[in-house]
Amino acid sequence: MNFISDNAWGAAPEMLEALGSANAGTALSYGDDALTGRLASEFSRIFERPVAVFPVVSGTAANALALASIAPSHGVIFCHADAHIETDECGAPEFFTQGAKLATIPGRNGKLDPDGIEHMMARFVRGSVHHSQPAAISITQASESGTCYRPEEIAAIADVARRNHLKLHMDGARFANAIAWLGCAPAEASWKAGVDVLSFGATKNGALAAEAVIFFDPADAADFEYRRKRSGHLVSKMRFVSAQLICALEEDRWLDWARRSNAGARALAKGLSEIDGIEIAYPVEANAIFARLPDEMIARLRAQGAQFYDWSASSAGRTLVRLITSHATPQAEIARFLEVARG
Amino acid sequence: MNFISDNAWGAAPEMLEALGSANAGTALSYGDDALTGRLASEFSRIFERPVAVFPVVSGTAANALALASIAPSHGVIFCHADAHIETDECGAPEFFTQGAKLATIPGRNGKLDPDGIEHMMARFVRGSVHHSQPAAISITQASESGTCYRPEEIAAIADVARRNHLKLHMDGARFANAIAWLGCAPAEASWKAGVDVLSFGATKNGALAAEAVIFFDPADAADFEYRRKRSGHLVSKMRFVSAQLICALEEDRWLDWARRSNAGARALAKGLSEIDGIEIAYPVEANAIFARLPDEMIARLRAQGAQFYDWSASSAGRTLVRLITSHATPQAEIARFLEVARG
Amino acid sequence: MNFISDNAWGAAPEMLEALGSANAGTALSYGDDALTGRLASEFSRIFERPVAVFPVVSGTAANALALASIAPSHGVIFCHADAHIETDECGAPEFFTQGAKLATIPGRNGKLDPDGIEHMMARFVRGSVHHSQPAAISITQASESGTCYRPEEIAAIADVARRNHLKLHMDGARFANAIAWLGCAPAEASWKAGVDVLSFGATKNGALAAEAVIFFDPADAADFEYRRKRSGHLVSKMRFVSAQLICALEEDRWLDWARRSNAGARALAKGLSEIDGIEIAYPVEANAIFARLPDEMIARLRAQGAQFYDWSASSAGRTLVRLITSHATPQAEIARFLEVARG
Amino acid sequence: MNFISDNAWGAAPEMLEALGSANAGTALSYGDDALTGRLASEFSRIFERPVAVFPVVSGTAANALALASIAPSHGVIFCHADAHIETDECGAPEFFTQGAKLATIPGRNGKLDPDGIEHMMARFVRGSVHHSQPAAISITQASESGTCYRPEEIAAIADVARRNHLKLHMDGARFANAIAWLGCAPAEASWKAGVDVLSFGATKNGALAAEAVIFFDPADAADFEYRRKRSGHLVSKMRFVSAQLICALEEDRWLDWARRSNAGARALAKGLSEIDGIEIAYPVEANAIFARLPDEMIARLRAQGAQFYDWSASSAGRTLVRLITSHATPQAEIARFLEVARG
Repeated sequence: MNFISDNAWGAAPEMLEALGSANAGTALSYGDDALTGRLASEFSRIFERPVAVFPVVSGTAANALALASIAPSHGVIFCHADAHIETDECGAPEFFTQGAKLATIPGRNGKLDPDGIEHMMARFVRGSVHHSQPAAISITQASESGTCYRPEEIAAIADVARRNHLKLHMDGARFANAIAWLGCAPAEASWKAGVDVLSFGATKNGALAAEAVIFFDPADAADFEYRRKRSGHLVSKMRFVSAQLICALEEDRWLDWARRSNAGARALAKGLSEIDGIEIAYPVEANAIFARLPDEMIARLRAQGAQFYDWSASSAGRTLVRLITSHATPQAEIARFLEVARG
Repeated sequence: MNFISDNAWGAAPEMLEALGSANAGTALSYGDDALTGRLASEFSRIFERPVAVFPVVSGTAANALALASIAPSHGVIFCHADAHIETDECGAPEFFTQGAKLATIPGRNGKLDPDGIEHMMARFVRGSVHHSQPAAISITQASESGTCYRPEEIAAIADVARRNHLKLHMDGARFANAIAWLGCAPAEASWKAGVDVLSFGATKNGALAAEAVIFFDPADAADFEYRRKRSGHLVSKMRFVSAQLICALEEDRWLDWARRSNAGARALAKGLSEIDGIEIAYPVEANAIFARLPDEMIARLRAQGAQFYDWSASSAGRTLVRLITSHATPQAEIARFLEVARG
Repeated sequence: MNFISDNAWGAAPEMLEALGSANAGTALSYGDDALTGRLASEFSRIFERPVAVFPVVSGTAANALALASIAPSHGVIFCHADAHIETDECGAPEFFTQGAKLATIPGRNGKLDPDGIEHMMARFVRGSVHHSQPAAISITQASESGTCYRPEEIAAIADVARRNHLKLHMDGARFANAIAWLGCAPAEASWKAGVDVLSFGATKNGALAAEAVIFFDPADAADFEYRRKRSGHLVSKMRFVSAQLICALEEDRWLDWARRSNAGARALAKGLSEIDGIEIAYPVEANAIFARLPDEMIARLRAQGAQFYDWSASSAGRTLVRLITSHATPQAEIARFLEVARG
Repeated sequence: MNFISDNAWGAAPEMLEALGSANAGTALSYGDDALTGRLASEFSRIFERPVAVFPVVSGTAANALALASIAPSHGVIFCHADAHIETDECGAPEFFTQGAKLATIPGRNGKLDPDGIEHMMARFVRGSVHHSQPAAISITQASESGTCYRPEEIAAIADVARRNHLKLHMDGARFANAIAWLGCAPAEASWKAGVDVLSFGATKNGALAAEAVIFFDPADAADFEYRRKRSGHLVSKMRFVSAQLICALEEDRWLDWARRSNAGARALAKGLSEIDGIEIAYPVEANAIFARLPDEMIARLRAQGAQFYDWSASSAGRTLVRLITSHATPQAEIARFLEVARG
């Protein structure tokens, strides 16, 4: 009963097959191979417009490289207080940008809202040399609380960005889960809503290690390839990273896997919500559930082998926990989890 | 007829099998999995002493992270003028170290010698605040010219390092090829000879994307994990990187593959040396051949599909070219190359 | 009627005389001169223990260099939300540290308290590679709100630092004003209370451009001189910076000037507090007054030539303003300000 | 008999008077004062065109900030092997640029020539992501060998820069000495010859601590003010730095002082050249003499109190020494030096 992370699950079988196919013959290294050459057209198809695509092997690399492309050393990047870039990347954005400042903003259900951003932005006086200068906004889709920004919510944030001459970055480590839930075209929840650069995640959704940084305006990517090389993220046998991304996009597997993952979370959340003493903390939209469980129930679950993270200290006999489902989570494990929870 | 790079070849079949095996079940992410947990003992076995091991996905990352662990921002890293860290990493060591200086030194057959290092080191006055301070020496094994440092050559350089309080780094992107040629124990050509930290390469030798940074003194690795995370090199499904390293070490496959690779180069070099008009530039020890070929021979080879890099401009009707063999290079391609070369 | 900043006033006449004296003859450059050589003993006398002293020309340089000496790239520096290092240095600490994170904490009267620090620190899990690691606490003495930390308040914060293996930095741009108000020995409000490194300011207190970074444990200063040189802060004719610091310390001028400055603020605050409609926001301890003034009073004052900063937007007909006095502020200007304020 | 450096001498008396005048009254801090406001027009007058001017307190800061404005993190800066930015700034350019690479080139008489630059530049393949990218050329005027670039020599280098889309920086720590020797308009030896940004030095030529970064194209200065603040180089009482620069420019004092300084070097060189056993190493154009002196003569000079630097190890009984004169070097000291040298 593993609900600890979507990273805890392996790769989809199709991914291993794709690696096998990619392995045939020789290929130019460092991204000059045919598979990498196909990425732009594959992603342009998905996003319904020409895009610049750069594969990397980790979400932290994707985010930090993307942010360094749009925020100078003296820049400010506005993000949610719970954003992965702030809380879980050991300062990678600061390292890649040579010390840009992350200004963190609280927000309901793990999401930023325009007012919160503008309120924080007022602290940094435009043009004052004493202040780091507003440069970018970063939002997470799906959010760290398992919720999704609607296209109109993104557009409202993008409007703040535009009016203040900022770029809008989307950390899409779980972009697939968001699109699967929203049911809209990827374009609707990205560039059409005003996103400038997207970290497109595949690792949590069936791949071994594959993410893509997608620039909707290639001008923002001017120095990207040098930054990527300089930070050790231009892997030599790039065909194996690109093969994973293509595998995910082909036949819309990325959405199938995400739908399966979300369905698991939905089923689990529905079951939990019917159990006395359990409170679901945020709307369950993507593949994460945050719920307050009685401590004795938590103990019982763990005794039966359930794995998941505590997300807070215990309070009044209950603890907030995080449960994550993946494309590979067996329905039987969900059923078993619920059974044990019911006691 | 691909002799362009060992990176141009795919992975050994055993590697794909290893990925398949690693894919079973769930595992903790970010290196807390069982396979990653085995790395220290696997490498300690190979090196006959306890070592600290950190997997990464590129040689540039391995080198830059290793160097940043042993050289401060105001440090000087001494290396050969042709060292990969100087010529082919787009300034990654400078990026990771926040601007340490690479002092490049010429040296015969692609190798540094103690006198050359000491001569260059004299430019940087120890303790003078105006000068960047000598911090590390980096040597490449096998070298960029396809030659190998003998243990006693390494020891002589390590002696310079010790006397000057420097650390000794070895870029072992082709460490396997060097050990296969030297025929000595890995320990003899590393820590026993005075190497402090080794970038151990597997990617060029059968893997998809797997390198290991090996610290012979764990104290040097104190901040390594933070640096790795911060630079985006702690991949979440680390088990797939570790599985490749274990696959290479098990049953000494890494040496088998390297021996096969070296044997190809030896056969090719032998054949070439018997052809009129060809001059082998450096001793062929590992899996690279640098040779001056008549330009019309080069044209003929390329017309027949041979792939390789020019390593200089044409001069007096001949051009220095680089030919690299890999574990997977078919003997038939070597024979065919020689046949075309003979004309 | 200039109450805009203590930086708006020139240097004390003794400072110019000191520069004249320092100008005689030749001297070794880059700090190898006799005046710079005297700094350690002068400051050791003031602080009643051996200290390592490094002169620089700006408070931002002093703070950033001090912090870079005690916080690694992956470190967290805890500071007040209004700390100068966070709000007014354009990200200098992040630049010098290669991207350490400033974690900002609110606190009453511009001061941090132990609970606030521990609460924030809990967000950063010690030893977790995903999190930047707690490294230092920085407090400002006198604070940005014009208040002073009592020695026992410093000691309580230092206790948090010690228990968590952090270093304690003090931004003492107005250390003189704090000591003048506390009436204690400089040692009591610094190292005896647990401060590890102090940015000692002279510029705001009579000098032209002179600050000193003081390490109470020389081990923390191991790389300082390289950092200072590398950042362009080792001025060649250092004797002129050192002469200012010595001038300030000799005959305890720094305390005389600070007492004069504080006395001006006290007189001004007393007068203001007796005027209807004025609210003093924080205890007036050093040389800054934060007060809410009726907007029409503000307009009247400015019409008569009074200079000072608004510190908030107008609310309910009143605006928070900041008034700063200096050693050179004429009593007549204070009297005149009060007269105009009274209307 | 101090010939150790022009930094060893104090400030011109006019400088101290200028500080006294600047000290009157209050002034806005951080460069918003009237004196700083005059800098642009003063320098525009000197250079016969509008320029953007930024005062700083050290030559290292001027150079590093200028270079960071024109070279990205992945850039290459071409400079002479003896350039101050390479040999005497402890890696400041690398620190400010986040690790750009300095490519050093030998050159006759301390000067770069176009062929040497192009030869080195060929190592860095434009557009290849593996290579740091050529970004800037930096020349020193007067050079570290005491020689001066003629306007046509600068133009030839600028032509290389233009053809390769590089910016041209001039380290003018001794720009005054060069102009005094060349006898041309400052414009002729700077922007008219193709210089984009100039580090204009005053410290070595009569000031206490004052340099100016001058951009001939303000577009290059877009981020300069943020970089300066972020690195601690926006001193609060900027009027005192600006006053020094204005003092130097007014009445062309900077050229008078430089002429005096050069005349001293010329007289000293003439005297030395007439002494048996002395060899002048480079043409004496500015205020530095490099000469090989018999070791016993050196011992005799030092025994009589002469101060100067050895510039090489002794060889065949002679040692290369550096002798520097300043605006304040008494003619009597020159005469005395020659007298002792004659023996």
